[in-house]
Amino acid sequence: QRCYSQAFDDPDLFRTKALINGQWFKKLNSFPVRNPSTQELIAEVSDCQLSNYEDAIVGGKATFDKFRHTSPQERSVMLENLGNLLVENKQDLARLITLENGKPFRDSLGEVLYSASYFRWFSQEAVRMYGTVIPGPGGNKQMFTIKQPLGVVGVMTPWNFPSAMLARKVAPALAAGNTCVVKPASETPLSALVIGWLCQQAGFPSGTCSILPTSNTAEVGKLLCGHDLIKKVTFTGSTRVGRLLMAQCAQDSKIIKKISMELGGNAPFIVFNDADLDKALTGIIGCKFRQSGQTCVCANRIFVHKDVYDEFAARLVKTMTSTFNLGDGFNERVTHGPLISAAAVEKVSKLVEDAKEKGAEVLTGGKKADALGPYFYRPTVLSGVNESMDIFHTEVFGPVASLVKFEDAEEVIKMANNSDVGLAGYFYTQDISKAQEVALKMETGMIGINTSAISDAALPFGGIKNSGLGREGSLHGIEDYTELKSIVLQP
Amino acid sequence: QRCYSQAFDDPDLFRTKALINGQWFKKLNSFPVRNPSTQELIAEVSDCQLSNYEDAIVGGKATFDKFRHTSPQERSVMLENLGNLLVENKQDLARLITLENGKPFRDSLGEVLYSASYFRWFSQEAVRMYGTVIPGPGGNKQMFTIKQPLGVVGVMTPWNFPSAMLARKVAPALAAGNTCVVKPASETPLSALVIGWLCQQAGFPSGTCSILPTSNTAEVGKLLCGHDLIKKVTFTGSTRVGRLLMAQCAQDSKIIKKISMELGGNAPFIVFNDADLDKALTGIIGCKFRQSGQTCVCANRIFVHKDVYDEFAARLVKTMTSTFNLGDGFNERVTHGPLISAAAVEKVSKLVEDAKEKGAEVLTGGKKADALGPYFYRPTVLSGVNESMDIFHTEVFGPVASLVKFEDAEEVIKMANNSDVGLAGYFYTQDISKAQEVALKMETGMIGINTSAISDAALPFGGIKNSGLGREGSLHGIEDYTELKSIVLQP
Amino acid sequence: QRCYSQAFDDPDLFRTKALINGQWFKKLNSFPVRNPSTQELIAEVSDCQLSNYEDAIVGGKATFDKFRHTSPQERSVMLENLGNLLVENKQDLARLITLENGKPFRDSLGEVLYSASYFRWFSQEAVRMYGTVIPGPGGNKQMFTIKQPLGVVGVMTPWNFPSAMLARKVAPALAAGNTCVVKPASETPLSALVIGWLCQQAGFPSGTCSILPTSNTAEVGKLLCGHDLIKKVTFTGSTRVGRLLMAQCAQDSKIIKKISMELGGNAPFIVFNDADLDKALTGIIGCKFRQSGQTCVCANRIFVHKDVYDEFAARLVKTMTSTFNLGDGFNERVTHGPLISAAAVEKVSKLVEDAKEKGAEVLTGGKKADALGPYFYRPTVLSGVNESMDIFHTEVFGPVASLVKFEDAEEVIKMANNSDVGLAGYFYTQDISKAQEVALKMETGMIGINTSAISDAALPFGGIKNSGLGREGSLHGIEDYTELKSIVLQP
Amino acid sequence: QRCYSQAFDDPDLFRTKALINGQWFKKLNSFPVRNPSTQELIAEVSDCQLSNYEDAIVGGKATFDKFRHTSPQERSVMLENLGNLLVENKQDLARLITLENGKPFRDSLGEVLYSASYFRWFSQEAVRMYGTVIPGPGGNKQMFTIKQPLGVVGVMTPWNFPSAMLARKVAPALAAGNTCVVKPASETPLSALVIGWLCQQAGFPSGTCSILPTSNTAEVGKLLCGHDLIKKVTFTGSTRVGRLLMAQCAQDSKIIKKISMELGGNAPFIVFNDADLDKALTGIIGCKFRQSGQTCVCANRIFVHKDVYDEFAARLVKTMTSTFNLGDGFNERVTHGPLISAAAVEKVSKLVEDAKEKGAEVLTGGKKADALGPYFYRPTVLSGVNESMDIFHTEVFGPVASLVKFEDAEEVIKMANNSDVGLAGYFYTQDISKAQEVALKMETGMIGINTSAISDAALPFGGIKNSGLGREGSLHGIEDYTELKSIVLQP
Repeated sequence: QRCYSQAFDDPDLFRTKALINGQWFKKLNSFPVRNPSTQELIAEVSDCQLSNYEDAIVGGKATFDKFRHTSPQERSVMLENLGNLLVENKQDLARLITLENGKPFRDSLGEVLYSASYFRWFSQEAVRMYGTVIPGPGGNKQMFTIKQPLGVVGVMTPWNFPSAMLARKVAPALAAGNTCVVKPASETPLSALVIGWLCQQAGFPSGTCSILPTSNTAEVGKLLCGHDLIKKVTFTGSTRVGRLLMAQCAQDSKIIKKISMELGGNAPFIVFNDADLDKALTGIIGCKFRQSGQTCVCANRIFVHKDVYDEFAARLVKTMTSTFNLGDGFNERVTHGPLISAAAVEKVSKLVEDAKEKGAEVLTGGKKADALGPYFYRPTVLSGVNESMDIFHTEVFGPVASLVKFEDAEEVIKMANNSDVGLAGYFYTQDISKAQEVALKMETGMIGINTSAISDAALPFGGIKNSGLGREGSLHGIEDYTELKSIVLQP
Repeated sequence: QRCYSQAFDDPDLFRTKALINGQWFKKLNSFPVRNPSTQELIAEVSDCQLSNYEDAIVGGKATFDKFRHTSPQERSVMLENLGNLLVENKQDLARLITLENGKPFRDSLGEVLYSASYFRWFSQEAVRMYGTVIPGPGGNKQMFTIKQPLGVVGVMTPWNFPSAMLARKVAPALAAGNTCVVKPASETPLSALVIGWLCQQAGFPSGTCSILPTSNTAEVGKLLCGHDLIKKVTFTGSTRVGRLLMAQCAQDSKIIKKISMELGGNAPFIVFNDADLDKALTGIIGCKFRQSGQTCVCANRIFVHKDVYDEFAARLVKTMTSTFNLGDGFNERVTHGPLISAAAVEKVSKLVEDAKEKGAEVLTGGKKADALGPYFYRPTVLSGVNESMDIFHTEVFGPVASLVKFEDAEEVIKMANNSDVGLAGYFYTQDISKAQEVALKMETGMIGINTSAISDAALPFGGIKNSGLGREGSLHGIEDYTELKSIVLQP
Repeated sequence: QRCYSQAFDDPDLFRTKALINGQWFKKLNSFPVRNPSTQELIAEVSDCQLSNYEDAIVGGKATFDKFRHTSPQERSVMLENLGNLLVENKQDLARLITLENGKPFRDSLGEVLYSASYFRWFSQEAVRMYGTVIPGPGGNKQMFTIKQPLGVVGVMTPWNFPSAMLARKVAPALAAGNTCVVKPASETPLSALVIGWLCQQAGFPSGTCSILPTSNTAEVGKLLCGHDLIKKVTFTGSTRVGRLLMAQCAQDSKIIKKISMELGGNAPFIVFNDADLDKALTGIIGCKFRQSGQTCVCANRIFVHKDVYDEFAARLVKTMTSTFNLGDGFNERVTHGPLISAAAVEKVSKLVEDAKEKGAEVLTGGKKADALGPYFYRPTVLSGVNESMDIFHTEVFGPVASLVKFEDAEEVIKMANNSDVGLAGYFYTQDISKAQEVALKMETGMIGINTSAISDAALPFGGIKNSGLGREGSLHGIEDYTELKSIVLQP
Repeated sequence: QRCYSQAFDDPDLFRTKALINGQWFKKLNSFPVRNPSTQELIAEVSDCQLSNYEDAIVGGKATFDKFRHTSPQERSVMLENLGNLLVENKQDLARLITLENGKPFRDSLGEVLYSASYFRWFSQEAVRMYGTVIPGPGGNKQMFTIKQPLGVVGVMTPWNFPSAMLARKVAPALAAGNTCVVKPASETPLSALVIGWLCQQAGFPSGTCSILPTSNTAEVGKLLCGHDLIKKVTFTGSTRVGRLLMAQCAQDSKIIKKISMELGGNAPFIVFNDADLDKALTGIIGCKFRQSGQTCVCANRIFVHKDVYDEFAARLVKTMTSTFNLGDGFNERVTHGPLISAAAVEKVSKLVEDAKEKGAEVLTGGKKADALGPYFYRPTVLSGVNESMDIFHTEVFGPVASLVKFEDAEEVIKMANNSDVGLAGYFYTQDISKAQEVALKMETGMIGINTSAISDAALPFGGIKNSGLGREGSLHGIEDYTELKSIVLQP
């Protein structure tokens, strides 16, 4: 069995201590981080307490008071350096991701490059924080707007893209002149800490970006939301936690806090009868099973027109059985890794059992892969899923494709929109009129037409309904990290 | 004593019944609206209950499902009609404002035109809801963004600009294709109801804009924040209430709600020693005493350089005593009207007393004008105000100019920024370097340099810190009433 | 036979004297304007000489020096007034158009509204001449851009849309603060003069927009191009004349002159085999035969896939024969009017004869309609047109639909692009991939997909290749009438 | 005497053969390039004939047909590579500039970095060629705009910034997907050829950027303007030549050609009596004497208020005499180099003599520095210059500061605007009202307020009046190298 190496080219990139105001803290308690493929201990990592966060926040404010006065060009260069460092060290960074997240090494490499693309993008946006000159309609005044940074930003990131989700938040924050206090997911702190290290190498001043691993997630979240020096909270995670944080921001903080939230999805994926099935299959493989279904834009409900339902299902199963390899992400032949935890496996298991009980048919998979380890679940296709089943209404976050048969466009749009969240959605049709109609009516923040590869630093990323607030990346991504100031000059 | 007439040219514009889904409700209970100048009863107005709001919201959603499909051009024409109707009926609309708010008739006329300017502006923005074509960096995809309306918007408006604040929220909401459920301030419902009537004349479909007066402010606010069909809440009012509403949105609603808040201010007004004192005097008269100090952008702390302090104070007092006339807004000679309530007078009184006790000197005014009525307070100048006094830290919302003497620029910027809110700020200097520095450092959302007349439909209006979230008016004003949808097309 | 009235509601709108710096000149020589339907004399119109133009230009400069300082709001209101006046007087203005151009009265009404839409659009753009605040990358400078007007603009307009083409140029010119000297087509001066009159009613100062009919087209064009006080020349007309004017600008003028040119087209119109033929028929009727084929965006070469060629041709002929009525535009039953001149009829005739000789088949029409008058040519369909025929390479500007049969997409795109001009192009397909591909590859400035109704004040109008320079209308339309000034401030 | 080395780190960067479609032509005739400091022969360089240009153009078109389909990301990376290569090889590139242009080595280094900044900027703009989604006002259509490249661009560059002016044109051209045929100034071909070499190293395909030195400037200019495959001509140079090229474009070309022209200036530099004289002195040293006055944005007329005239003149002379060192640019102590040619020296000499005859006083300099070499002219200050002198109306392009005394603002603005060109202008005042007024009234495309350092890749560069057409650099710089295509979709 061939393996990608787990040995690090640069051991300095394997960092386990918290980074607080430029210092690597050695004396803190620690908590264990384990490889979800093997349950092996990867590292004991600093377990930051509220007092450490307090220090980071206060230091972040002091740093901000200077950092905000760096020039756009200086910040641009630092961010470019950082992006370059990610690319140069992509092998090591991918090792960290596969170690703590479990995803196949090739996917980890892809994530590192995706992560770097955000630092690069916002390096370029840093020198493009344009305001507007608004000629005074009355003729005697000059009016204009400028954008200014906010202060210390509280950043809470998830375990499924431990590098890229951090990059997508930290890059625009720093580009605009803010400083960051980052709480990485406790499952994947190493991928965050290494970016703290690379920030230092890239020239960012001490205190610009503190990274504080913690096992005390709930209390820390509450602290960040309630702290008056935290001007903005940005979070990617579940809708449940997101709503809790929003309430804490509103209740616990004496200041009115800006909030960005990228929360859960329940993405519809519609295959019309005039779709290019090759494209649709490629699409579903990519967006249903990537990272074993653990992305927020994963297709969650796959609606297939009755005319092509059987063919699509058969081809999907055939592709999966002939090309998927479940296992440890460091194995070169592996295409799909474990889930993140036992709880995740249990949740998926339960959803599949519920669907089966209510009439769904398992075309492939449908059970755990205990032989590989406790966190593995077999890539699964369920046929005959309908709105009575829990799996229709729940973000699975696992490798289960739920096929729903439909007959006409109006019906399927209604079903697709039958969800209280709306992050991503996809549909496949060659018909230009149908494409236009569905694109307008589908209630999601992002839509892929004949593609499921929608993530790009240049595209606004974000959801509607209960999928969140704000947009990340793109020409708009820096807005959420700035204040607009209006100035009127009477000469 | 000469008077502007209180007689209405078009009696249909004097409306006291709630407007719910296009129906004027006659059978509801009522509450009294009184003239703050005279305490006379103006009208008994429908007192809407939660069930009425429920009806309006459900109807607003049903209307939205059709209204969203009107064309930009259709909405543009309706809004233009509405703006024109305000201008055509400005005399009557100004009568309503002076009746229930008390402000001088000329100011009321000005408000009507200002209100109309928002309908006109967003009539023009309705056909300019541009999205962006983003060429796929990888070359094989087309990416673009579009803006779509949200749904039913809950609108809560204040009594100080009962017409204009409603216009600033309703105009962009309707321009984008949303529908509105409006809770006007209980002190000034007539100025809101008449806009409901004019909406009907302008061609807006029933249910597009329901106006529901109520005396049950707290419960209704909670309902709007908690209701799942209300996709967005927009509020102008105090920071205290704004924070409460934000908490209710986060806690009571099952949906993640968009929020816009225009809250309190504590505007600094700085007169440097190189200022053009004529301009500064004009500025302070306009922005401290307009509406007897009851605007959110009123100068609240007037910092005057020691070199020009005495001259400025003397000229200010002289201008006030020679040109101000306190009284009933319908009297043609009156320049300044009453405060909105007994509580408002008490609050001002108490702040002045506190300042006096702590050493402030009353240069003019400093007491109630009981002879005119219980809600009148004399235009006042306090000299020697400092940070120990409550009035330094409190939004006065009354006709009191608090003068603070300062010596150097750094000191005064620090004092000016010593506030947890930041809506508007003003400063007067002829020096271009100082102007640039202070404009960058002053922590407010809007800044007037050598002018206090900063309100314009073309300028983004809004605050930072605890002064709110979001921007109203301008090229940005429609953004808060839309969702950005990202579309990726793989051809 | 029912007729629209030729009687004017407001006789003041029938104006025959030149308007120079606010004066209506009575003592000039005149030239006759005739109705192309009947050859009747409509009016004797002032025949302006070079000295009159000289006066208008010098006066336009003097006016500019004041007009440029009007506020955006003032110019916006004047333009809105002007647009409203066009709408209010649309019957009379349409009468003028039908009289001198010959187009059916309903089309003339449509043109007046289209014309008004430009005044309205640029009324709104006048208050949106935004510049950009560019934060100095080095941090210590503020940079920004503003837009300023140019000066006197020389405007040369065509006879086919005598009102709308003038509006599309004059509206942005005035919105930005320029003044105009207009040379209308000698065939249609009345439709221009009336706009001069309405400018006066709308509040524009004398000299803002002088209108000088002339029979001395060539000399006047040379004067405008060569005059140092004319800062910009804008022209809509033939490519031949456009190129001549450009050379004169470069040679005769001591100043570097800005130029906008909307020149000839040779629009391809492609019907793929998967097209919605109903849409395609509606499209071709609209864009081939409107104004009897005398628009610059008329379909000139109609490529039809062999699978649907016969059906499309048959349905086209059937529609034409059952719904077209050739005749005087004031006759209510008439759908299509005469050509503009005997020369135009001769040109069309010759092109049809050439095509017939080279093998094209006449499916309907194919000859003059002498019985109706000397300028009438029968709506014609030619089948079997190919690249050997003159009609393939010539802008017909007459009611002749040239059908070309094709087999595959690559071939038809190549044929469509086989032209030295590229103004508009159209194609019909339901396939989203094909639509994307053809839209990218078709070498024209404007493209209609499944529609031929592409003209809208909100859309940039203009061509590539030899179809011109610059874009009219839309968010970009004001750019061609302004200078961008870059300002760097070191505070 | 200490010297910067003339030895090249990488001899491959010293290139003398023409680069045509990726081939380095060895068999061509040659012409000599000489060092203006020493008159020594630097190299014999390929002397391209019209047939070579023909080959380059045809090849450029063939390359374009493929290169236009590269992805934005690919072009972005190539441009970034190119920018990085300039930075990495800055010593050698600066050597080339100092060798053939004569400017001090430190200035040459600065130019290389400035040149690199354009490749970097447009690397970033390549992935930001946004179009606009324009919602159809009528509601049933989608309208949008995209930007597409033009084809082969003819690029003519000057000798005063032989690297940066090329970069400013070639970078946006390539970013948008065009190909280039470059005619460098015959005085400075080496600085152009090396960029052709580095383009190859950066990954650009053969034929993307051909560089053809020639001594046959006039004929080649005519060819580029007249050639139908050249879709755009961009030129930086004198107004005289620019106007000639424009005429050739209009006359000789069968196609309507896009044109960008950066032509001569006659920059006013105004020192008001409230100016910060330190800033003003720094400014005038930088923008009058940099490159010995041979930049198009050099201050040409220095207006000084009478109150500060004597002080300013005295301090200027003192600074010059104490800090300037004239000589060979490779000498480390040298601050100012030679002029480009004997003709340049003669022109300057003649202008100074004329001024002296008409009453100007020489405060310092005022003659050639023959001892250093035939192309050296001593840095000069003329006092008492007025509008009667040729030097007031002529772009000096040499190290002569012409001081004009003035009394009031209106007068000086009028004098400053008394010029048929308007590229850059500068003024120094601390008064915000005056700054605003002068910035609006000064008739130049670029304005520096209290600074003369206005060149930045982020700022639009270009002039008004006879100083040219188009804007280079900035968010607008790519527009001149693209066509805007409007697309209307009826779904």
